[in-house]
Amino acid sequence: MNPMLKAGLALLASLAVSVAQAELRQFEMTIEEIEVEVAPNFKAKAWGFNGQVPGPLIHVREGDEVEVTVHNLTGLSHTVHWHGMFQTGTWQSDGVPHVTQHAIEPGDSYTYRFVADKVGSLWYHCHVNVNEHVGIRGMWGPLIVEPKAPSELEQQVTHDALLMFSGWSEKYADAFGDGPRPGEHLNYYSINGKSFPMSQPIRVRKGDVLRLRLFAATVPVAFHLHGHDMLVTHKDGKPLPAPYEVDVVPMQPGERVDVIVRMNNPGLWMTHDHIDHHTTNNGREHGGSMLVVEYEEIEKPDWYDWKDIEYRPDFYMIESMRKPHGLHDKDVHRGRPLM
Amino acid sequence: MNPMLKAGLALLASLAVSVAQAELRQFEMTIEEIEVEVAPNFKAKAWGFNGQVPGPLIHVREGDEVEVTVHNLTGLSHTVHWHGMFQTGTWQSDGVPHVTQHAIEPGDSYTYRFVADKVGSLWYHCHVNVNEHVGIRGMWGPLIVEPKAPSELEQQVTHDALLMFSGWSEKYADAFGDGPRPGEHLNYYSINGKSFPMSQPIRVRKGDVLRLRLFAATVPVAFHLHGHDMLVTHKDGKPLPAPYEVDVVPMQPGERVDVIVRMNNPGLWMTHDHIDHHTTNNGREHGGSMLVVEYEEIEKPDWYDWKDIEYRPDFYMIESMRKPHGLHDKDVHRGRPLM
Amino acid sequence: MNPMLKAGLALLASLAVSVAQAELRQFEMTIEEIEVEVAPNFKAKAWGFNGQVPGPLIHVREGDEVEVTVHNLTGLSHTVHWHGMFQTGTWQSDGVPHVTQHAIEPGDSYTYRFVADKVGSLWYHCHVNVNEHVGIRGMWGPLIVEPKAPSELEQQVTHDALLMFSGWSEKYADAFGDGPRPGEHLNYYSINGKSFPMSQPIRVRKGDVLRLRLFAATVPVAFHLHGHDMLVTHKDGKPLPAPYEVDVVPMQPGERVDVIVRMNNPGLWMTHDHIDHHTTNNGREHGGSMLVVEYEEIEKPDWYDWKDIEYRPDFYMIESMRKPHGLHDKDVHRGRPLM
Repeated sequence: MNPMLKAGLALLASLAVSVAQAELRQFEMTIEEIEVEVAPNFKAKAWGFNGQVPGPLIHVREGDEVEVTVHNLTGLSHTVHWHGMFQTGTWQSDGVPHVTQHAIEPGDSYTYRFVADKVGSLWYHCHVNVNEHVGIRGMWGPLIVEPKAPSELEQQVTHDALLMFSGWSEKYADAFGDGPRPGEHLNYYSINGKSFPMSQPIRVRKGDVLRLRLFAATVPVAFHLHGHDMLVTHKDGKPLPAPYEVDVVPMQPGERVDVIVRMNNPGLWMTHDHIDHHTTNNGREHGGSMLVVEYEEIEKPDWYDWKDIEYRPDFYMIESMRKPHGLHDKDVHRGRPLM
Repeated sequence: MNPMLKAGLALLASLAVSVAQAELRQFEMTIEEIEVEVAPNFKAKAWGFNGQVPGPLIHVREGDEVEVTVHNLTGLSHTVHWHGMFQTGTWQSDGVPHVTQHAIEPGDSYTYRFVADKVGSLWYHCHVNVNEHVGIRGMWGPLIVEPKAPSELEQQVTHDALLMFSGWSEKYADAFGDGPRPGEHLNYYSINGKSFPMSQPIRVRKGDVLRLRLFAATVPVAFHLHGHDMLVTHKDGKPLPAPYEVDVVPMQPGERVDVIVRMNNPGLWMTHDHIDHHTTNNGREHGGSMLVVEYEEIEKPDWYDWKDIEYRPDFYMIESMRKPHGLHDKDVHRGRPLM
Repeated sequence: MNPMLKAGLALLASLAVSVAQAELRQFEMTIEEIEVEVAPNFKAKAWGFNGQVPGPLIHVREGDEVEVTVHNLTGLSHTVHWHGMFQTGTWQSDGVPHVTQHAIEPGDSYTYRFVADKVGSLWYHCHVNVNEHVGIRGMWGPLIVEPKAPSELEQQVTHDALLMFSGWSEKYADAFGDGPRPGEHLNYYSINGKSFPMSQPIRVRKGDVLRLRLFAATVPVAFHLHGHDMLVTHKDGKPLPAPYEVDVVPMQPGERVDVIVRMNNPGLWMTHDHIDHHTTNNGREHGGSMLVVEYEEIEKPDWYDWKDIEYRPDFYMIESMRKPHGLHDKDVHRGRPLM
């Protein structure tokens, strides 16, 4: 296509989208006591938003009015902070106990109201005693705000995958209300709440364009993809003025980095946190924050680790991201209710 | 104003400044044995430059000749390294024991002489046994070199705040001359030497332009400001060719990052290190490296954590940064003398 | 020289190079049980590629066909992953056990074949039980792929130095087949396998152009050079679109950062990891990941730490990098054979 014509059409498309009406999105979300199976032979107590770790995907459009009523069904108090959202004019919805609100007591509810005035890869998490509630109890989930005018490259994305990195502590796994002291280490590391081999592959075909939205929810991460460079396009939801290519993405807790990868190299590609002990399960290899990017064209060898794995295509929320905007529960992340 | 005219005036202003004479700045600085109250119920022994943690603000202009005579009033040897300064032609003033000088023995003095040939957010710290002296004894302070030609954005800054991040060890708090072994962890984390709630708010009004000069003095940091994005303008004193916006700034020890924030969103905004255990005091929430950015327009709720705090406006050196160039002691950072 | 003429000649030179034939490079590499002296009074058992830590320098040209036959002479199984290489069409040479190949059993060999289709600072390492094999047994080495068309600045480099950062564990030093659990800390930190004072200086003269290729092989690093800023030009082998200057380079495990420094400031310049306990040897100062950049013009004081050091000019592989392309063993990194 003529490049001028192409650019013109893209402009028209983005204008058409930007004049669409902002919508009011009303959601309900519980906080529930659950047990999650993180790794073979390791379960931990968690507080799951809608009983899930990560919490449900909240996927809205730039400018939408968002209203989330949160019901605390657990035995301790919580809040929800919408990390990255500006909360313009709505600072009381920022979710910080003793600063913007009273914490939500057991049995109580609280309604957060704000306009989605920042786009990109945001997240939400409890802001009460984050060292325990966020650090080892799974109180975090993704909040994706679709821009009115995505870039041409973003429009080419065929697979939008969300990877949230966190850690777990065996010592405190059963002790709701208690968490690690400084110097007490985590023993398990996970992506979307599961350690290898309980994590899942990402399946693609040659020609796909994969966006990985990486969330360092609670731990430092050095994310390495084999066989491909990753174009770093966004940091904390914002486009970078000078995107650059890497094979390791370093992150500290709270950061989000979006990368886009052209799937042009069929194979079975190990993909993992390069911090060495993050790829063990309590020190035993190999485990932790690890997955394989599988090209469907490739015949899997008999000795392949995941030869016969039961594939759960929504583990990285690729399917949920294709649904209409809204709040999406994901069965694959549901824990066992303790209540 | 006409943009061309505005640009012309800015150019004239910068030329006027650049022809001003470089000055000779002569300072004296002691190193003293002190005790600092880091958190409620936690005090630590420290070696304070002029009895302070952080040490005095040294604020000079590009090209100034700087002469600092350091008097070691403590019982162990020290040096001062001027981190980031090029020391062109003055490598003997670089402050490294056994490499550029003999350490300054107890009771002795040493004079450092150099030209301020690098601008921006620099710092100074001891270079003897940094694992203890810098790591847990507070031997660090800010060294700001004003550029002859600040950018247009820098000229808009109304509040220039300095935040120095460090940690403390209960086990070694009383033991001058001893420090943590690898694997022995810190229990307290602080900004400018104080853990929440002993830290202070930053108070602004709508329309202010806030520069945060972030110093990862001794610990990794993932700095998160609520309600605003931060424009990352400088790294280690140098302007970035492609500034970018973030809501979390990751740093490793020794790094300095300058960010500029337009204060356009009145509220009470929690601001903190996102490494979870850095916001506890010895594992108890909430504490550590945490503050609130308060818009003065906002009426504080009765249940606000800092409702009745005694405000110390120079805690982040915003006031000292407005004084004429020189060495500025800050009462708010003074420890209790042990001598 | 006329700038246009200069640019024209540079273009011609790069064209001349790019039409040169790709070569077939065939190498043999053993994995051997060795003992390495990391610091005074500290030795550790390691698995050395060709008996060395770091392993031999593999230095090839963009587009070369590379064939490496690896002989496992140790008592446990291993693989070799070529970190950063795309392995286009050769995913079975990616070196991941149970995913791309069977691990190489004791006594067995395996031949890796790939085209050097990614340029810059790559590396290779074992991918079996990385927490031990890579983390504390020295199973890593540099793989440099020379671009067909280096930039004008790259062509000015006079000293190409490779610095690989790692850590060591006293507790597991003697226990082949066992490694640290999460929370068990390393006690020694090293550059190219040696802790200060067993590391070496880098010697330069005024006017030299020094490239430092920094590899965070197994530990986080905050690399600080005194007396100079460093221009960050490449990340993970790829040129950055907007290079920037720093005095501290932060890295997470797996990352490589190239910096270029104009040596214009004669002196003796301490250079070190700014993570405080990384510059101790088991908590005793000063040691760890530390060296001095020495200008040869400078007369060394009597009290200089390294006044009479026996200089090993290939410690940072500056000499090996000047040799014709190939696989280069380095005597300076050889361990004591245990077999």
